[in-house]
Amino acid sequence: MQSIKQYQELISNHFEELTIRNEPKNLYEPIKYIIGLGGKRLRPVLTLMTTEVFDVDYHKALAAATAIEVFHNFSLIHDDIMDDAPLRRGNETVHEKWGINTGILSGDAMLILAYQYFESYEPKIFQELAKLFSKTAIEVCEGQQYDVDFEERDDVTIPEYLKMIEYKTAVLVGAAMKMGAIVAETSDENKNLIYDFGLNLGIAFQLQDDYLDAFGNPETFGKQVGGDIIENKKTYLYLKALEFSNQSEKEQLLHLFSIQPSDSSDKIISVKDIFNTIGASDATQKAIHDYTFKAFKTLKKMNISEDKKVLLKAFGEKLMSRDV
Amino acid sequence: MQSIKQYQELISNHFEELTIRNEPKNLYEPIKYIIGLGGKRLRPVLTLMTTEVFDVDYHKALAAATAIEVFHNFSLIHDDIMDDAPLRRGNETVHEKWGINTGILSGDAMLILAYQYFESYEPKIFQELAKLFSKTAIEVCEGQQYDVDFEERDDVTIPEYLKMIEYKTAVLVGAAMKMGAIVAETSDENKNLIYDFGLNLGIAFQLQDDYLDAFGNPETFGKQVGGDIIENKKTYLYLKALEFSNQSEKEQLLHLFSIQPSDSSDKIISVKDIFNTIGASDATQKAIHDYTFKAFKTLKKMNISEDKKVLLKAFGEKLMSRDV
Repeated sequence: MQSIKQYQELISNHFEELTIRNEPKNLYEPIKYIIGLGGKRLRPVLTLMTTEVFDVDYHKALAAATAIEVFHNFSLIHDDIMDDAPLRRGNETVHEKWGINTGILSGDAMLILAYQYFESYEPKIFQELAKLFSKTAIEVCEGQQYDVDFEERDDVTIPEYLKMIEYKTAVLVGAAMKMGAIVAETSDENKNLIYDFGLNLGIAFQLQDDYLDAFGNPETFGKQVGGDIIENKKTYLYLKALEFSNQSEKEQLLHLFSIQPSDSSDKIISVKDIFNTIGASDATQKAIHDYTFKAFKTLKKMNISEDKKVLLKAFGEKLMSRDV
Repeated sequence: MQSIKQYQELISNHFEELTIRNEPKNLYEPIKYIIGLGGKRLRPVLTLMTTEVFDVDYHKALAAATAIEVFHNFSLIHDDIMDDAPLRRGNETVHEKWGINTGILSGDAMLILAYQYFESYEPKIFQELAKLFSKTAIEVCEGQQYDVDFEERDDVTIPEYLKMIEYKTAVLVGAAMKMGAIVAETSDENKNLIYDFGLNLGIAFQLQDDYLDAFGNPETFGKQVGGDIIENKKTYLYLKALEFSNQSEKEQLLHLFSIQPSDSSDKIISVKDIFNTIGASDATQKAIHDYTFKAFKTLKKMNISEDKKVLLKAFGEKLMSRDV
């Protein structure tokens, strides 16, 4: 088995050599552009790694890993249109560079291309991959819709929020790993356990993202710390704070999350102060810990050698310490 | 075998009984809405009919037929956004009713749902259907991109135009029929012949659409006669007219296709007059005839009983006389 860094390099080289059709140029240029923007390629890395965890050569998983990454980039293009986002990975978004229509159509083509990458597998594996992929892709759409819906709602519950981040983010992590298991043709039980491992780690990771958005180190977090507070985003921290608040604290929170001052530094300080004193920060850290623990617990049930379990756990720890 | 009308009723009932998930409402309501708008359901009818042409019960083809129609409706939602179209089948378009973001996301979900309808087939047939589907879907995207590109270009050639309508419209007709053949598990030769039949009939149908848009009977055509001329659309009629024109005729045509007068009746009369006198109308009718003939010729090579060939030809003739 390789290190995460080595898998990342493998995937990165693979994408550099990937042949994508040229014509019509206005359809395929934006696809090459977004794929070329890179990123950590964590999802395809997970697919390769999982295949090797189940003792099969990662080469067999390259096509499935490619499908996962192409799908992920499809969802970025369409989400960026919906979020009106000007930048992606420090570069212009596709719709900003080529217009919304190109963003829609190139995105559509990527979703179809993703399915095509499964075609190199034999029928039984193909169907298993495509079924999991469709189920996951629909859930990602549903997660995105819930996210959009929640912006307009002020009665979002914690279970609803958890379901949203599960669908929008975590199912794809679980699916990326399960695809590696499908390609390796391991037992159904192992396939489902590795899915649960990825799913719970994905939820923990997303909750940690909410936490770090408020309390992260500006030098290392990558995004603007306080961004969610500035945008009045209903994160886990916010929903927990509402849950724990008395009437006057609730009014204060609702007020702070209704304003958008030009200088937001005071607002950020006040909100973070409430998050801390009210117990929302602790509750979020507990939830992150619980989901990470849940992920690690599924490892114990898995029918693989002890050193593979150590490896998967080390990966989980690396991911949660944001060291990848 | 049933009549076309009977197949249409079967499909129509099937779509009325189709269960689509309810939550999130904002994702699935638009899907139910566009599917509920109906239409002639010609593509799924072709799938059912083809399965029975190859002596297998149409019930086996219902899932594939559903996938084809759901995909077609996905492409309508996204195309309507790109074309900024307010109406579809006399009703508000999805993005007009719910906004562009909903149109994008509900469309995405429909593309994925289409793949899911294939899941009821056994792995070998599933893979064959999904492969054909992906190939076709990508071509439809490419056709749409060419159509968009051609709006900005004034050097579109006839072969380029033919390729555009082949991809944008005809491949889905061919695929709808081939899927029926795949479900029926007929020979590869029959599968390819029925695809060619549908493809060529689809091209003929689209060329006839161009023709009728200018010269059709306003009572029966369904769309506004002269609409393409008003919108300066580079149809087969227009490209043929350019090809046949001398310098002064060319200048006249280019001028007419650069203006958008508030009252377009004079413009429509002038353009139609040029189409007729210059020979573009005749050339278009000849092309329609040639592609129809090509479709019928593939029937002869097909390994099915004579009465089935008569039936497919009768369907082709009914379609081309716009009697369905």
